[in-house]
Amino acid sequence: MPKNTPESAAELLNGAEEVLPDGALRQKLAEGKPLRVKAGFDPTAADLHLGHTVLMQKMRRFQELGHTVIFLIGDFTAAIGDPSGRNSARPPLSAAEIEKNAETYAAQVFKILDKNKTEIRRNSEWFGKMDAAGMVKLAAKYTVARMLERDDFAKRYKEKRPVAVHEFLYPLVQGYDSVALRADVELGGADQKFNLLVGRELQKLENQKPQCIMTLPLLEGTDGVKKMSKTEGNHIGVAEPPEEIYGKLMSVSDSLMWRYYKLLSAKTAAETAEIQNAVLAGENPVAAKKALARELCERFCGKDAAQDAAEKFESMFKRKETPENIPEYQLRPGPGGMPPLFYALKAAGLAESTSAAKRLVAQGAVRIDGAAETNPGRILPAGGEWTVQAGKRKFARIKT
Amino acid sequence: MPKNTPESAAELLNGAEEVLPDGALRQKLAEGKPLRVKAGFDPTAADLHLGHTVLMQKMRRFQELGHTVIFLIGDFTAAIGDPSGRNSARPPLSAAEIEKNAETYAAQVFKILDKNKTEIRRNSEWFGKMDAAGMVKLAAKYTVARMLERDDFAKRYKEKRPVAVHEFLYPLVQGYDSVALRADVELGGADQKFNLLVGRELQKLENQKPQCIMTLPLLEGTDGVKKMSKTEGNHIGVAEPPEEIYGKLMSVSDSLMWRYYKLLSAKTAAETAEIQNAVLAGENPVAAKKALARELCERFCGKDAAQDAAEKFESMFKRKETPENIPEYQLRPGPGGMPPLFYALKAAGLAESTSAAKRLVAQGAVRIDGAAETNPGRILPAGGEWTVQAGKRKFARIKT
Repeated sequence: MPKNTPESAAELLNGAEEVLPDGALRQKLAEGKPLRVKAGFDPTAADLHLGHTVLMQKMRRFQELGHTVIFLIGDFTAAIGDPSGRNSARPPLSAAEIEKNAETYAAQVFKILDKNKTEIRRNSEWFGKMDAAGMVKLAAKYTVARMLERDDFAKRYKEKRPVAVHEFLYPLVQGYDSVALRADVELGGADQKFNLLVGRELQKLENQKPQCIMTLPLLEGTDGVKKMSKTEGNHIGVAEPPEEIYGKLMSVSDSLMWRYYKLLSAKTAAETAEIQNAVLAGENPVAAKKALARELCERFCGKDAAQDAAEKFESMFKRKETPENIPEYQLRPGPGGMPPLFYALKAAGLAESTSAAKRLVAQGAVRIDGAAETNPGRILPAGGEWTVQAGKRKFARIKT
Repeated sequence: MPKNTPESAAELLNGAEEVLPDGALRQKLAEGKPLRVKAGFDPTAADLHLGHTVLMQKMRRFQELGHTVIFLIGDFTAAIGDPSGRNSARPPLSAAEIEKNAETYAAQVFKILDKNKTEIRRNSEWFGKMDAAGMVKLAAKYTVARMLERDDFAKRYKEKRPVAVHEFLYPLVQGYDSVALRADVELGGADQKFNLLVGRELQKLENQKPQCIMTLPLLEGTDGVKKMSKTEGNHIGVAEPPEEIYGKLMSVSDSLMWRYYKLLSAKTAAETAEIQNAVLAGENPVAAKKALARELCERFCGKDAAQDAAEKFESMFKRKETPENIPEYQLRPGPGGMPPLFYALKAAGLAESTSAAKRLVAQGAVRIDGAAETNPGRILPAGGEWTVQAGKRKFARIKT
């Protein structure tokens, strides 16, 4: 019997971009039966990054509450690739490559999910048996007009960029997976909304209770602006060395850190709120950043490697990047309390003016205890001590 | 070695609506090799009418000139029907029904074609072996935008009437048939142009020499206006009783008769031109109409039945429809020669005025020797004798 309390339901909805139809998930949860929660993965990419794990983290939540999580490997379409040849990123994969990618995926995903509580399926189970006539029949279940409502199809069609006919079949393939699996819930990235809704339609046509769908936000990369992707170079790969994962996480801005807490951490919303409140009350956010870096590094590299990475980060920061004797500066509160960071940078001689200080912060050139700081108005609370770096060479030890 | 002379090439092109690309057929013919000439038939309709035989007549021409004619039965899609359920006229057919319809088709088609020189194929030969992945790959070969260029798709999409996704697969299925058959030429109705051109594209992608395509006009029904169809009630079914076929053909207008000569008769263009010239020179067109009715009746019902039908038509016309004693009227030539029909109708007392006479002709209410006459300006040549009927009851025996 799965757990269902107002808090646990809120926990499931936390961080989701959209949950449709309105109220349907709460209703399904209220039935008290374990839900079949499906998420599909294309075994085409070998390099997983944190962006991919947002979904897995949500799957884990469902699992923790006693629901059945289905890890669906889309090996049917992976074996076809993009036969129009327009998308060089999707060559057809051999059975061996698919198997290898699926194993890589599984290895990563079971760092997050409980393998014993996960149903692993492949859509070749049903599509491998389907003949050409079956595909024609499946194609009959949706209209061209409704397919062209999908944002990216509409955009490409309008801009006269090619949309190949088979691309209209893939949402139907994904939707049919939900029929075959009798899914109650399907999770996907925000860009998957259309396809997830097709699953509902096909289930209705098969007289199944339609799944409800949950889309999850596309994770921003370390720059805090663009979607995380290897091409943008703003990614944190789950298979990267622990020092890299740790170091990259330490470099993100505070606001992005909170977003990562929400979407990636195993901490509940309540636990995260507690940490956040402490920082608002004056605690050093670097501690929270270290905790997050440690947690994610542990998840993907193990406890010992994470410990090592943390230690290396500290010593490297102290030994290599920080000059041995750096000037100290005592920051004094003004009539309105402690002054903001940009003032402190100027006062400590790290910037020539407050506007230069703001510029440096905006460029990502300011680090506090090794972590990048992007808020020029950041208040360093009284009674602390920080190593503050501006650009490559200027350091100061600021005491408050 | 097929026959290829300027005359035989002209004969093949005669009556065609479009032959594409320009000059390609003459070029293929000039190679002197037997061409593979494909025409596909959906074994869905049980009732064939003369409209369907236009294509077959053209196939026969190719056959007579020594080319290979492929009678392709589209049993693959017939077994699927219209799975969207929107088109009640296309329910999926069982294998037995398809076989029965295919046999009916074959029985009809071999009244026109030489069975020994015909390759009979079924597209289930290749599509029956294709799996769902194969259909996806086929779908990749064409874009949505190009599919939406097809007139009927464009119209329905614009009018917001549904086009189901699988309808985009059918032109590709038809096109792939040309690949499988290595067709040099594909024949089809004028409404098939788009699909025939898809065949060219797919052949190019498979490094085959693309077929050239020939579309044939859609035959007008007995009303001379609308496309022949059972629904319109203007059809002449090839399985109708001989008297019906004969009688319906006798009822068509002269201009439609010439169209039927062109599209349905086995006579060459030269032979038809000869008959036409004789009529222009004053010979009674009814004789030409009788010859056509006799030819087509013979084709579908056999020589004896056609003879019977012709005799019955004559006697029925004389006995039943013509009163025993009808007034005679001697029509005299004016200064410009024999007067036109509308004048004769008034002069013989069959119409109250020449404008009433014209109206009667326009309404199709005037018959000459039992055949409808729709040209009010028709000249009855000197030295003849006709039974002319206006409306149901008025008759006159007009002598010139």
